[in-house]
Amino acid sequence: MSLDDAVAKPHERLAKALAVDLDAVNALIRTRMASEHAPRIPEVTAHLVEAGGKRLRPMLTLAAARMCGYAGPYHVHLAATVEFIHTATLLHDDVVDESGQRRGRPTANLLWDNKSSVLVGDYLFARSFQLMTETDNMRVLSILSDAAATIAEGEVLQLTAAQDLRTSEAIYLQVVRGKTAALFSAATKVGGVIAGAEEDRIAALHAYGDALGIAFQIVDDLLDYQGDTKATGKNVGDDFRERKLTLPVIKAVALADAEERAFWKRVIEKGDQRDGDLEHAIALLNRHDTLEATRQDALGWAETARAAMQSLPESELRTMLTDLSDYVVARIN
Amino acid sequence: MSLDDAVAKPHERLAKALAVDLDAVNALIRTRMASEHAPRIPEVTAHLVEAGGKRLRPMLTLAAARMCGYAGPYHVHLAATVEFIHTATLLHDDVVDESGQRRGRPTANLLWDNKSSVLVGDYLFARSFQLMTETDNMRVLSILSDAAATIAEGEVLQLTAAQDLRTSEAIYLQVVRGKTAALFSAATKVGGVIAGAEEDRIAALHAYGDALGIAFQIVDDLLDYQGDTKATGKNVGDDFRERKLTLPVIKAVALADAEERAFWKRVIEKGDQRDGDLEHAIALLNRHDTLEATRQDALGWAETARAAMQSLPESELRTMLTDLSDYVVARIN
Repeated sequence: MSLDDAVAKPHERLAKALAVDLDAVNALIRTRMASEHAPRIPEVTAHLVEAGGKRLRPMLTLAAARMCGYAGPYHVHLAATVEFIHTATLLHDDVVDESGQRRGRPTANLLWDNKSSVLVGDYLFARSFQLMTETDNMRVLSILSDAAATIAEGEVLQLTAAQDLRTSEAIYLQVVRGKTAALFSAATKVGGVIAGAEEDRIAALHAYGDALGIAFQIVDDLLDYQGDTKATGKNVGDDFRERKLTLPVIKAVALADAEERAFWKRVIEKGDQRDGDLEHAIALLNRHDTLEATRQDALGWAETARAAMQSLPESELRTMLTDLSDYVVARIN
Repeated sequence: MSLDDAVAKPHERLAKALAVDLDAVNALIRTRMASEHAPRIPEVTAHLVEAGGKRLRPMLTLAAARMCGYAGPYHVHLAATVEFIHTATLLHDDVVDESGQRRGRPTANLLWDNKSSVLVGDYLFARSFQLMTETDNMRVLSILSDAAATIAEGEVLQLTAAQDLRTSEAIYLQVVRGKTAALFSAATKVGGVIAGAEEDRIAALHAYGDALGIAFQIVDDLLDYQGDTKATGKNVGDDFRERKLTLPVIKAVALADAEERAFWKRVIEKGDQRDGDLEHAIALLNRHDTLEATRQDALGWAETARAAMQSLPESELRTMLTDLSDYVVARIN
């Protein structure tokens, strides 16, 4: 490994190693997000697609397929599919969350409107299924439609569980699997499937994506309470203001005395939030050390991802994916 | 034909002839709309699914498959798929249109909220793709994902075209194909495809669904200006208030003098609507006889549907589908 490679971030090394494939994915995305009849569609999607997402999910699919020796063209279709599903989810999330920023820019529904976000999301979702059918592989269709259902189910579950103090860590994990890990694990798994890999390798790829996605989401939740707005493009306390019961809070509620419980009940369940409540919430998280406990959970999931990779044959891509699982938690390490 | 059959409405006769299949579709819909983890999902969908939609689209699939001699189980999956796509579209339409009624009940987003409508719609959409994959027939997946893309594209196109006085009848037709006819024609076509029918029959089934859907939508647009709220469950003038350029208005704009044009510009393009404007709009439609011209268009499409059916072998189901195309326009005949 050269010094340059050693200091480069793993997703940048992946992007370099997969550059030809990734160019093909980007070209396919541009072609397929076009709409002859409805110019509003590329207007809305360009905003998201060109905003420079890291293409993390498509790279997972490309890397998984290549690691398993795939030499055909369809990993590109599947990578574009995964990005379209992800983008559709973001668009529908914008409608839902009313958050003010996404990838450091104003969200689409502030620039356009809710109508466009819903319908253009639907369009990308339909486009993703068109792309999948072109692979002529029914198993990848099944995996990705299962993932799409799990994503929607997780988001709905979050609606009800988010403001309910009885939400357990187990339910949280279910929501996170739906919200993030389902698409990560589907992305890696379909790469193995399209390559015709052995079942134990497909299972390892799935396990890697699942654990990576969970680690990714826990880090996200953690940074929402202790991140740097400029670096993350997110506002500290967004989850708190949206009354989301994320892992640090769930752990703090479990350890709360009567007075603390009353506080969480007021701000999360009743949504009665006043000046200084966010600061008080963070003080409670620190009092019970739940930010640290949450951090340990994220590190544990990153370790699970690393372990899953070790069961696959050694390769440069395997090293990069292993490093990626370390990198996901590096911001909190 | 018995006297009883002669007076029964064609969709009721279809429901009777397809009763066993339709029971299987309803059972499958109930099973698949369930969600172990997110009870909000069946709450929202039950509202729509039990509200007694006529199951028109699923019956089109079942009838098409049976007419082509299909004896397998998968027409039931495809019929449920089509209903799920339709229901998902309604849910997302509720977010979009902010209309006060749907099938004579308050819309889901008044009972729950926009978040649920978007995400439960996504869930049903994903569920529909899961159902399709179970048929193990890639061509039906391709047809239905094409339809889903056309639906979303049509809805987006409507957003921009709806309030633009330059919208032509050709663009209107494109919107209508997206909004309504794409799912009708996919519903009939996949019935033929799953049955392994000859290509000319599949083409006739597609043409029937397309023309039936267009007639259906034009009638809907017409009744929005002259319907009976109690009978249709719609409020007269909804489209006008939402500034939709539907066919009667497009025809009236084309025939408008300068003063009339200024009126349409104010109420549709600028959305500046005052007391008495709806009545004046209807007076203009009557002055140029565009409600009658629109009615003639609907009758023409119903005739196209009837003609497509005639190219298929004679059968009881064919008679019912032919009668259905007459029935769709009977309310305006």
